Amino acid sequence: MPTNHIIVLDNRPTGETSASNFKLITAETPALKEGQVLVRHHYLSLDPYMRGRMNDGKNYAQPQALGEVMIGGTVGEVIESKHPEFTVGQTVQCMGGWQEYSVINANLPGALKPVNAGKISISHFLGAVGMPGVTAWYGLVKIIQAKPGATVTVSAASGAVGSAYGTLAKARGFRVVGIAGGKAKCDYVVNELGFDACIDYKVHKDYISLSKALKDACPNGIDGHFENVGGMVLDAVMLRANDFARIAVCGMIAGYNGEPLVMTNPTLILKSRMTIEGFIVSEHMEVWPEALAELADLVASGQLKPRETVAQGLASAPEAFMGLLKGKNFGKQLVKLI
Amino acid sequence: MPTNHIIVLDNRPTGETSASNFKLITAETPALKEGQVLVRHHYLSLDPYMRGRMNDGKNYAQPQALGEVMIGGTVGEVIESKHPEFTVGQTVQCMGGWQEYSVINANLPGALKPVNAGKISISHFLGAVGMPGVTAWYGLVKIIQAKPGATVTVSAASGAVGSAYGTLAKARGFRVVGIAGGKAKCDYVVNELGFDACIDYKVHKDYISLSKALKDACPNGIDGHFENVGGMVLDAVMLRANDFARIAVCGMIAGYNGEPLVMTNPTLILKSRMTIEGFIVSEHMEVWPEALAELADLVASGQLKPRETVAQGLASAPEAFMGLLKGKNFGKQLVKLI
Repeated sequence: MPTNHIIVLDNRPTGETSASNFKLITAETPALKEGQVLVRHHYLSLDPYMRGRMNDGKNYAQPQALGEVMIGGTVGEVIESKHPEFTVGQTVQCMGGWQEYSVINANLPGALKPVNAGKISISHFLGAVGMPGVTAWYGLVKIIQAKPGATVTVSAASGAVGSAYGTLAKARGFRVVGIAGGKAKCDYVVNELGFDACIDYKVHKDYISLSKALKDACPNGIDGHFENVGGMVLDAVMLRANDFARIAVCGMIAGYNGEPLVMTNPTLILKSRMTIEGFIVSEHMEVWPEALAELADLVASGQLKPRETVAQGLASAPEAFMGLLKGKNFGKQLVKLI
Repeated sequence: MPTNHIIVLDNRPTGETSASNFKLITAETPALKEGQVLVRHHYLSLDPYMRGRMNDGKNYAQPQALGEVMIGGTVGEVIESKHPEFTVGQTVQCMGGWQEYSVINANLPGALKPVNAGKISISHFLGAVGMPGVTAWYGLVKIIQAKPGATVTVSAASGAVGSAYGTLAKARGFRVVGIAGGKAKCDYVVNELGFDACIDYKVHKDYISLSKALKDACPNGIDGHFENVGGMVLDAVMLRANDFARIAVCGMIAGYNGEPLVMTNPTLILKSRMTIEGFIVSEHMEVWPEALAELADLVASGQLKPRETVAQGLASAPEAFMGLLKGKNFGKQLVKLI
């Protein structure tokens, strides 16, 4: 059995995450039992939700356990199988974690998913045609439920979720305005993803200023918003929200480090009769097949050109993750493990 | 034609409302045209929404115009009619405003509603069997949508909306916990309305302290909340909200005077996958018949014993209204005009 390298959570961050919160360890992969499959990971996905799990206390899921392999989505190949439905060489997706190999009990429903990549790079099954893409789909289709002619917005627009959201929204004929950090990201959002406009939040010192830019970009106001960030961005959007606007809250990355993150004008919820709904896509597995089929079509046809930032080797994961939390990545953040 | 006394909005408040914002004027009631009805008001309803209308700028409705009669719901009797469906002596309800008489165009759908009071005091058609009651019904039934065994909460629990909400919720078998200001109101909420518990927010200096009291009163957490107040109360409730909790936002009286009113922990929307929805009941007229029928039954049977604070005479309306905004009333605030 091959030797495995594993990154575990060694201690919980107080404030910003640092490299010392993680520990790289080595272990032999165990012999397989009946029903198990040994997967060699090609790509590991890094996602903002992981930061929430690193905290103790209330969260939408169990906190990441100390001393255990960091949670994470992976795509790779079967290198040994004691399950009749999986064969060596097959491409698969699983929650393999921050490690090079994982042993998966393939009898658990959904634990190991075959990937039929066709012309699509397998890395995209961790992004546009994976959890981030379905997240965008669920927020747009099931929560925002925009009507024809609507204007919809999204923060972290150049990321894995934001780029899928914008492409899905354009395919439905909506006006789509992104919010992202820096000129390069905004240019990509408009020029390569086809958003109608993108606002660089970094040039705005407060939410009032950002909301003025939103007013220019959304002359008919905002009917639906997908929130990945929170804080000043959400405050600015709420100020421009139309009556009966609907806001899907997927992330509040601005608050993950524990700094105060208030909503400045909650009275707007009443004044504009808004609906604000938080969600986590893994609680809505029933939509995945429909969403993934639509996302795969958009990628295969070239309408959705997912951007990726790829770190090399497992040891680079902590630094890449810290960069992700600061917006240093551009598009989907991955770690290539092979 | 009788002489009418009218209270108009003379100027807009900056911060707290004061008596000098209003002006009492006298005018003759005009001769009726075809289709019009002259109504003598017996009771005027005072409601928190009026404070929002007194501000200029964004609101869910047109601002109250300066120099015009203050908006308000009324119940009274027809004293002259040029409409075939209304006869002198009939009890009716209308948006008559802060005045003793109003001329209503009865051809406008819903402008003038016959009241079949039976054993119910006509004043209740401005409260439990009127707009406040339907507001409570809509929030509980259509937004909160609580499931059997749920715990639901409400702020301003002893008020017209809160008391109807609690009674409706008890009739449906939920655990109901109120939040109100002062021991007398809390005693009424528990002893006369039948809430399971009521918390006096005035003995808590911050939302953390209030949330601890909520934890004791809601050992299984909070599944649904009806918000009339906002601020510290909403912050405390959100801290105790269960996964998939639903919050109906009907009022944020704490923010009507323009003081800063933030939501302290919006990340809880995500962590608990909450839905927060603002609404105004006049936009959902389709539910009124069903809601009013249920509310009338509860009042007629004595299950709902609405409490009222009644000011005497039109001239007392401004002071009574300012008291309402500070929670000095106990139950539904009315002005008796006859």
